[in-house]
Amino acid sequence: MAPIRHITLPAGFVANGVACGVKASGKEDLAIIASTTDAAAAVVTTQNQVVGAPVLRIRRLLPKGYGTLRGVVSNSGVSNVATGAAGVRDADTMGNLTARLLGTTGAKVLAASTGVIGHRLPMDKIRRGIAAAAAGLGPGRDTNALRAMMTTDTREKYAVVQTRLGGKTVTLAGVVKGSGMISPCMATMIGVLTTDAAIAPSALHKALKQVVPDTFNAVTVDSDTSTSDTVVALANGAAGNKTITAGSADFAKFVALLHEVCYELSYALAADGEGATKVVEIAVVGARSDAEAAVAAKSVANSPLFKCAIHGGDPNWGRIVAALGKSSAKVNPETLSVRIGGVCVFSKGTPCRFNLKKVEAHLGGKDIKVGCDLGLGKGKSTALTCDFSREYITINADYHT
Amino acid sequence: MAPIRHITLPAGFVANGVACGVKASGKEDLAIIASTTDAAAAVVTTQNQVVGAPVLRIRRLLPKGYGTLRGVVSNSGVSNVATGAAGVRDADTMGNLTARLLGTTGAKVLAASTGVIGHRLPMDKIRRGIAAAAAGLGPGRDTNALRAMMTTDTREKYAVVQTRLGGKTVTLAGVVKGSGMISPCMATMIGVLTTDAAIAPSALHKALKQVVPDTFNAVTVDSDTSTSDTVVALANGAAGNKTITAGSADFAKFVALLHEVCYELSYALAADGEGATKVVEIAVVGARSDAEAAVAAKSVANSPLFKCAIHGGDPNWGRIVAALGKSSAKVNPETLSVRIGGVCVFSKGTPCRFNLKKVEAHLGGKDIKVGCDLGLGKGKSTALTCDFSREYITINADYHT
Repeated sequence: MAPIRHITLPAGFVANGVACGVKASGKEDLAIIASTTDAAAAVVTTQNQVVGAPVLRIRRLLPKGYGTLRGVVSNSGVSNVATGAAGVRDADTMGNLTARLLGTTGAKVLAASTGVIGHRLPMDKIRRGIAAAAAGLGPGRDTNALRAMMTTDTREKYAVVQTRLGGKTVTLAGVVKGSGMISPCMATMIGVLTTDAAIAPSALHKALKQVVPDTFNAVTVDSDTSTSDTVVALANGAAGNKTITAGSADFAKFVALLHEVCYELSYALAADGEGATKVVEIAVVGARSDAEAAVAAKSVANSPLFKCAIHGGDPNWGRIVAALGKSSAKVNPETLSVRIGGVCVFSKGTPCRFNLKKVEAHLGGKDIKVGCDLGLGKGKSTALTCDFSREYITINADYHT
Repeated sequence: MAPIRHITLPAGFVANGVACGVKASGKEDLAIIASTTDAAAAVVTTQNQVVGAPVLRIRRLLPKGYGTLRGVVSNSGVSNVATGAAGVRDADTMGNLTARLLGTTGAKVLAASTGVIGHRLPMDKIRRGIAAAAAGLGPGRDTNALRAMMTTDTREKYAVVQTRLGGKTVTLAGVVKGSGMISPCMATMIGVLTTDAAIAPSALHKALKQVVPDTFNAVTVDSDTSTSDTVVALANGAAGNKTITAGSADFAKFVALLHEVCYELSYALAADGEGATKVVEIAVVGARSDAEAAVAAKSVANSPLFKCAIHGGDPNWGRIVAALGKSSAKVNPETLSVRIGGVCVFSKGTPCRFNLKKVEAHLGGKDIKVGCDLGLGKGKSTALTCDFSREYITINADYHT
């Protein structure tokens, strides 16, 4: 079978993943994804006030959120969060060691970790893992890298798109890991995007910040924002297109491309949420602002009762109305309408007479759509989540640190 | 066996409960709790923006939150929420009918309903139930009333205290129902407090508003604020003490009494949370303000991952730190300390070396205490919750509307 290429499909990217023993399971746990030349880079990190040593280091290296990088080294098993000054030194060592093997300086390689909070990284294992992964770097080792990215993920998650930009074929790929916003005691979501497009670092950052609210930040598995969430984009310009700037005609096209990959990865995150059997999209329109729409959509997406009803396939629209009402977004039942799978179940303060069989059939599927029109303005936002199952409890209660 | 008296232990109160067929199970589902004379009354209702017809009626009858009442009629099985103008008429009919049988006017009897959202009350059954309950009113029928209050509750929840106030023995009692903030498709928490103390309506309201934030509002089972939450206090003055006013010396004593009963009822609510096997108290100190402390405590109390860890007895303090960090309250890991069962597990940015066996023994119990010192100020607040079990999912996913 030919090796699958996605994260190294953009020209000039290499990757690899190895098992170095951080994970007790013996599975792959250390990945390097790098450009063979300097790449424009942009990064967004978690909004949690408690952040891991790798995130602290990223913010120190890229205080504006963008700059020039060669690559990313990532491990699973230990998140290097709440580890004090020693943890920050460990993150530095990871980045510096990888940088040396890539023939660049430490400041050009980000380190990212997911796993148990409060444990030090086993640095001997990490050192050996970095050496082994760097020695085998290449295009076509994508599957190794993806496996090494996985924490409690049940499947590899990637997306690739291609388009013509400035007369050149441009490829954009992404990988992501995470199955709870915090997985069992893990601290979790990490995404790496590679592209051979030529784009200025500041424009890349602007594009990333533009798509993240509607993609990665729209996902909620359990409302528990991780202490490690990080998305890094690397653009090495190997496609040879005219460098995209924030004002250029190709910028909007690039943003659309980035949105496509990030949405696909976000959907994959929700689908692989801990214990998930269904993906649920909650689209809120008619809010007073986009921000209020996002708050309302998240309030539904994070409601345990709503998520249980989805799991049970119960057309329990009362839980949707109650979850909207408890949010800090302005909601007026008299102007509120709710649809499940396109069928109106509640309209302006009154229950609809609806085709129960049709709604139940929709809820019996894997891909659930809820639409809420607050009827108050033009604000809109969509949240992505999954259902809430006994398996979620099993994963998170029976796991021991 | 002698009948248990609690809600009718304060002089001059009567109660009763009957099965009138609102609940398909045939269990008691309609309760009346009343004073035999006019009583000072105060009420607090849900903060959800979507509220049921009974709450709308309460707010119309008592726009300031206090006044004079004779009693409360309550049903389980149907919450009369999202039922439009017809639902408001039904709530009026419930109150008016009960009032007539109590020999008073409709404005002096509140109606309160819990149960399915979006269904009309079966008014024929309600009418018959009110007639039957009113015919059998008396002291000593407390158990009937409590059973009729129960929705998905697994046990009756009441509390009684007595003290000397102004040279007289004063009794204060309370009953409460609710096992999810919204139970399976139910809309839920209703509390009734009876006392023979003499207190001005405005002072009663002030006292109630003072104790609710640290008691009923500190409870969260699943973060899903109900559309029907209501607490009513009735004080008929039968004890003969000098009428308490907000400025009087006895006011603080009365507030302490009220706090005791409300805290006991709140603890009972958390203990009877859907699927609960443990009660968890999260005490936050050192916040910049009491409001921020409440936000931080609730963020931990509502974290599904934290609640799963408690269920599993796992000393997973990383989830506590992460839940504090994701809240909108100011949190700085460098000043943050966390205790479980009195044992320090995280101190100012660094994990503590702690006695694992001791912490695990505490987590193996039924009564879990978590203490968080944010180290930033004097704000403090406590949240009460329960663990998150497979049973919660079963209750809420397998239930069908």
